[in-house]
Amino acid sequence: MKSVTVGELAHSLEARGWGDLSLRVTGAAEPAATGPVGPEGGVMALAMAPKYAETLKPGSMAILAEGMDPEAYGLKAAIFAPRPRLLMAGLTRSFDPGPDIPEGVHPTAVIDPTAQIGEGAAIAPFAVIGAGVRIGAQARIGAHVSIGRGTVLGEGAVLHAGARIAHGVRAGDRLILQQGASIGGDGFSFVTPEESGIEEIRRTLGTRADIKAQHWTRIHSLGGVEIGDDVEVGSNATIDRGTIRATRIGSGTKIDNLVMIGHNVVIGEDCLLCSQVGVAGSAKIGNRVVLAGKVGVNDNIEVGDDVIAGGAAKLFTRVPAGRVVLGNPAVKMETQLEIQKAIRRLPRFAQQLAKLQETVTRLLEKG
Amino acid sequence: MKSVTVGELAHSLEARGWGDLSLRVTGAAEPAATGPVGPEGGVMALAMAPKYAETLKPGSMAILAEGMDPEAYGLKAAIFAPRPRLLMAGLTRSFDPGPDIPEGVHPTAVIDPTAQIGEGAAIAPFAVIGAGVRIGAQARIGAHVSIGRGTVLGEGAVLHAGARIAHGVRAGDRLILQQGASIGGDGFSFVTPEESGIEEIRRTLGTRADIKAQHWTRIHSLGGVEIGDDVEVGSNATIDRGTIRATRIGSGTKIDNLVMIGHNVVIGEDCLLCSQVGVAGSAKIGNRVVLAGKVGVNDNIEVGDDVIAGGAAKLFTRVPAGRVVLGNPAVKMETQLEIQKAIRRLPRFAQQLAKLQETVTRLLEKG
Amino acid sequence: MKSVTVGELAHSLEARGWGDLSLRVTGAAEPAATGPVGPEGGVMALAMAPKYAETLKPGSMAILAEGMDPEAYGLKAAIFAPRPRLLMAGLTRSFDPGPDIPEGVHPTAVIDPTAQIGEGAAIAPFAVIGAGVRIGAQARIGAHVSIGRGTVLGEGAVLHAGARIAHGVRAGDRLILQQGASIGGDGFSFVTPEESGIEEIRRTLGTRADIKAQHWTRIHSLGGVEIGDDVEVGSNATIDRGTIRATRIGSGTKIDNLVMIGHNVVIGEDCLLCSQVGVAGSAKIGNRVVLAGKVGVNDNIEVGDDVIAGGAAKLFTRVPAGRVVLGNPAVKMETQLEIQKAIRRLPRFAQQLAKLQETVTRLLEKG
Repeated sequence: MKSVTVGELAHSLEARGWGDLSLRVTGAAEPAATGPVGPEGGVMALAMAPKYAETLKPGSMAILAEGMDPEAYGLKAAIFAPRPRLLMAGLTRSFDPGPDIPEGVHPTAVIDPTAQIGEGAAIAPFAVIGAGVRIGAQARIGAHVSIGRGTVLGEGAVLHAGARIAHGVRAGDRLILQQGASIGGDGFSFVTPEESGIEEIRRTLGTRADIKAQHWTRIHSLGGVEIGDDVEVGSNATIDRGTIRATRIGSGTKIDNLVMIGHNVVIGEDCLLCSQVGVAGSAKIGNRVVLAGKVGVNDNIEVGDDVIAGGAAKLFTRVPAGRVVLGNPAVKMETQLEIQKAIRRLPRFAQQLAKLQETVTRLLEKG
Repeated sequence: MKSVTVGELAHSLEARGWGDLSLRVTGAAEPAATGPVGPEGGVMALAMAPKYAETLKPGSMAILAEGMDPEAYGLKAAIFAPRPRLLMAGLTRSFDPGPDIPEGVHPTAVIDPTAQIGEGAAIAPFAVIGAGVRIGAQARIGAHVSIGRGTVLGEGAVLHAGARIAHGVRAGDRLILQQGASIGGDGFSFVTPEESGIEEIRRTLGTRADIKAQHWTRIHSLGGVEIGDDVEVGSNATIDRGTIRATRIGSGTKIDNLVMIGHNVVIGEDCLLCSQVGVAGSAKIGNRVVLAGKVGVNDNIEVGDDVIAGGAAKLFTRVPAGRVVLGNPAVKMETQLEIQKAIRRLPRFAQQLAKLQETVTRLLEKG
Repeated sequence: MKSVTVGELAHSLEARGWGDLSLRVTGAAEPAATGPVGPEGGVMALAMAPKYAETLKPGSMAILAEGMDPEAYGLKAAIFAPRPRLLMAGLTRSFDPGPDIPEGVHPTAVIDPTAQIGEGAAIAPFAVIGAGVRIGAQARIGAHVSIGRGTVLGEGAVLHAGARIAHGVRAGDRLILQQGASIGGDGFSFVTPEESGIEEIRRTLGTRADIKAQHWTRIHSLGGVEIGDDVEVGSNATIDRGTIRATRIGSGTKIDNLVMIGHNVVIGEDCLLCSQVGVAGSAKIGNRVVLAGKVGVNDNIEVGDDVIAGGAAKLFTRVPAGRVVLGNPAVKMETQLEIQKAIRRLPRFAQQLAKLQETVTRLLEKG
C-alpha cells in the first residue's frame, strides 16, 4: 500500500504537523486499533475529539483536534485538524486502494470495435461495451459491467463490478457507479385506452364511477440520461431514462444506495440523495437539495434550491427554496415538530375534552 | 433508425393526419428540440396541449390535441391525438430502438445443451442459461443475464443486462425484465425452536414475557414463481419464490424499480406497483390494483380488486375492493385527508382547549 | 430429486410418524396439489391445521398438527408436527435442490492464481475471484459473482448469481447471498469545506443563516465489512464498508431483499431485518432485534437488544432494550396504538370542541 511521511501527509491535508515529521504513515485507524510507531512506520490514530483520545497509546501518532495536547498522550507525531470531517476526506483518499480493477484491458472483455476507450483505461473481466460507446481517459471499468451502444462517459469514470449503463446515456467526468447501480432503464409509464382509475382519482379527488377492466399499454422511453461531472451513484440504485427528453442529474450530485430516480426527473447540482430515496417521474429538484433516507418525492412536483427534507419525509406538493421539511405529508420542520408534540399529547386531550364536556353539562344542568 | 411517413405514422396510431402526409418522420421530441422539416424528413414535435405549442417552429411537424390549429403554428404536417398519452404509447414504440442486444447468439454465452431456445432469439455476451430451460421465440437476452435450470419463458421475452431468474420459474409471453431485476430468490422465512418475540407480540399485542436467546432456522423455498403474459419488472426489483406453492404475478401487471414481492404473494392481473413498493409474504392482491410509490402491504393480508393506494400508504389490514386508501396506517382517502386537516390544526386545538378549560374553571368559581 | 421414506423423514424431523412408514416421499405441497400415494411414492400434503385439511385426498399422506386424526381423512401415512413452522424448516431443507450452481469449477471462471479455494467448491460460469481471496470448503459460487481482492469467506458459502463482494470483506461460515446482493460498496459520506446545510440544521434545529454554494468532497471508505457465521443477505440488498473500522453484522443475523446497511453500522447477533429496511451510517443495533419491512433507523443512534420495530416504523432516537415500537416517529407500540385511535377520532374531537366552545360562550353570555 501507499506510504507517506507525517510531514507529507500534513502538507497534502493543508494541516499543521507536530513532532517527528519524518515518521512513515501506512494507514489510519481508530485509536484502539493502533500502537507505537515502529521503524517501518505505523498507522495514524484518528482522535479528533478528547473522548476518542482515551485509548491512544504512548509512542503512537494521531490526528487531533486543535487545542489537544500531543505530549499529554505521549505521541511521537501528530497532525492538527481544523475541520475534522474535511481532513478525513483528504486522509482517506490518500490511503484508499480503490476497487479491485486490475490495470489494462482484460482479454475476456467484449468491446465493440467501434467503441473508443480513452488512454490508461482499466477494464476488468467480462465487461461488455457496446457499439459507438466513448469512454474518457483513466476509466476503471469493473467486472461484469455493461455499457450500451452510444453511451458517452467523460474522464476518470470508476464503475464498480456489475454496474449497468444502458444505451444512449451521457455522463461528465469522474462518474462513480457502485456495484449493481443501474442507469438508463426504461421509465415506468403506462396508459389505458380509456381513463384509468388513477387518472379518475386525480381528477375527482377520490370519487370513482364504475370501474372498467383495462390493460396497460407501454409508453416507451426514447430519452436517455444526462449526468454532469463528479456524480456518484450508490449500490443497486436506479436512474430511469426519459420519455422524450433525457432524465438529468446535475454536476456534483451524490446518490446513495437503492435510490430510485424516475423518468424525466431533473435534479440540480450538488444535491445529496440518501439511501432509499424515491423521486417519481418528472419531478424537478433544485440545486444543493438534501433528501435524507427514505424520502419520497411525488411525480411532477418542484423542490426548490437548498431544500432539506428530513428522514422519511414524503413531499406531495411543491416545496419553496430554502425550506426545511419533515413528516408525511411533509411540512415545515418546526410545524412538524409542533404537530408531533401535539399528537403525543392527543390521548390526554381526549380525556381533558371528555372531562370538560361533563363539567359544562353539569354547569348547564345547574344553570 | 427507423423512419416512416406522417401518413403511415397517423395510420399506425389510428389518428388523423393533416398537411403533407408524405413527409418522413425520424423521431419525436419536445417542441423546443425540433425544427423545420428538411428534405430527409425530421423529428415530430409533441405539443398535445396549447401550453406546449408555444415553442413550435414554423415549417415543422407536430402532434397536436384535437381542436388545435396547425396553420396557426405554421406547421407543414400534424397528427391529432384524441387521447394524447395513448398516442404516446404507439408513437414511442415506433421509434424505440430497444436495448443493446445484438442479433444472434453470442459465442461467449454458456447455454446448457438441454436448454431449448426458440427461433430468432438474440443472446448477448456472457449470458448463462441452465439445464432444461425453455425460452420462446424472438427472445432477447441481455449481457450477463442468468436463467436457472428448468425455468420456462414464453415468446418475445426481453431480459435487459444483468437480469436474473433463478431455477423453476415460469413466465408467459412478452416478459420484460429491466437491468438487475431478480426473480426467484429464496423467501425470507425463518423460525425459532420455541415461540419467537414476534410471534409473542402478534399473540399478545405487545406484552412480552422474559426474552430468550434463540437462533433462526431457515425455511427453504421449494415453490417457484409463476408469471402471466405481458408482465414487466423494473430495475433491481425482486420477486421471491414461494415456500410450497409458487409466488404468482397475474398477466398484464407492471412492477417498477426496487419493488419487493415476498414469498407466496399472489398478485392479480393488470396491476401497477410503483417504485419501492413492498408486498410482504403471503399477501394477496386483486386485479387492477394500483400501489403508488413506497406503499407497503403487510404480510398475509388481502387487498381487493381495483384498490388504489396513494403514495407511501401502509396497508396493515384487509382492504375491500374498489377502495382508495392513503396514510400510515392506510384508511379511506377522504378520511385520511380529514385527519391530515385536523392534524394541521392540532396545535391550535391544544390552545383552544386550554383556553376553554380556563374559562370553564372561572365559570365554576363564579358559580 | 431426493426421496426418503415417511419413517426416515419423521426421524430426521424428530417427529412422530403414523401409518405405512415405508412409503416414499418425493416432495411436499399444499393438500389441493397432492393425491393418493402411488407405487413410486408421492408428495406429502402440508395440513398442519384442520382448515388446511379439507382438501386432503383419501389415500394420500400428510403432515398434521398434533390431535388431528389421520384415519378421518383416509390417509395412508402421516407425520405429526409439534411446532409446525419448525417442522417446515427441516422438511423444506430435505427437498430443496438449491440454486443452479453445477459442481466443479467452470472453465470460464477467472480466478486469481493467489486465491485459495477450499475443497469441494462449485464455481459457476464467469465468476471473478480476486487476488488473495480465501474461500472455505464446500462453497457454491454462482454465475457472474465477483469477489474482490483479499476477501475471506468461511466454509459452506452459497453466493447466488450476480452477488457481489468487494475487496477486504470477511465473513464466517455458511454465508448466503441472494441474487444481486452487494457487500462492501463505499459508504455515503461527504463533507463540505465549510459547515453544510445539514450540519447547520442539526446544530440549530431548523434555523438557517444564509445559504452558501458548496461542493461535496468524498470521504473514502477504508474499513471493510465483517460478517459472522450463518448470515443471509437478500436479493439486491446492500451493505456498505466502514470508513476507518469495518461495518459489522453479527452471527445468525438474517437480512431481507433491498435492505440497506450504511457504513460503520454495527448489528448484533440473531437479528431479522425485513425487506426495504434502511439502517443509516454508524447506527448500532443490538442482539435479537427484529425490524419489520420498511423500518428506518437514523444514523448514529442505538437500538437495544431484543427491540422489535413494527412495519414502517421510523426510529429517530435511541430505543432501550426489549422495547416494542411502532410509528413515525417510532414510540412504544401501545402509545402508538393509542395515538392512532385518537387520530381517527380527531375530526370528531374538532366538532365536539367547537360545540363546547359555543355552549360555554352561551353560558358566559347568560352569566
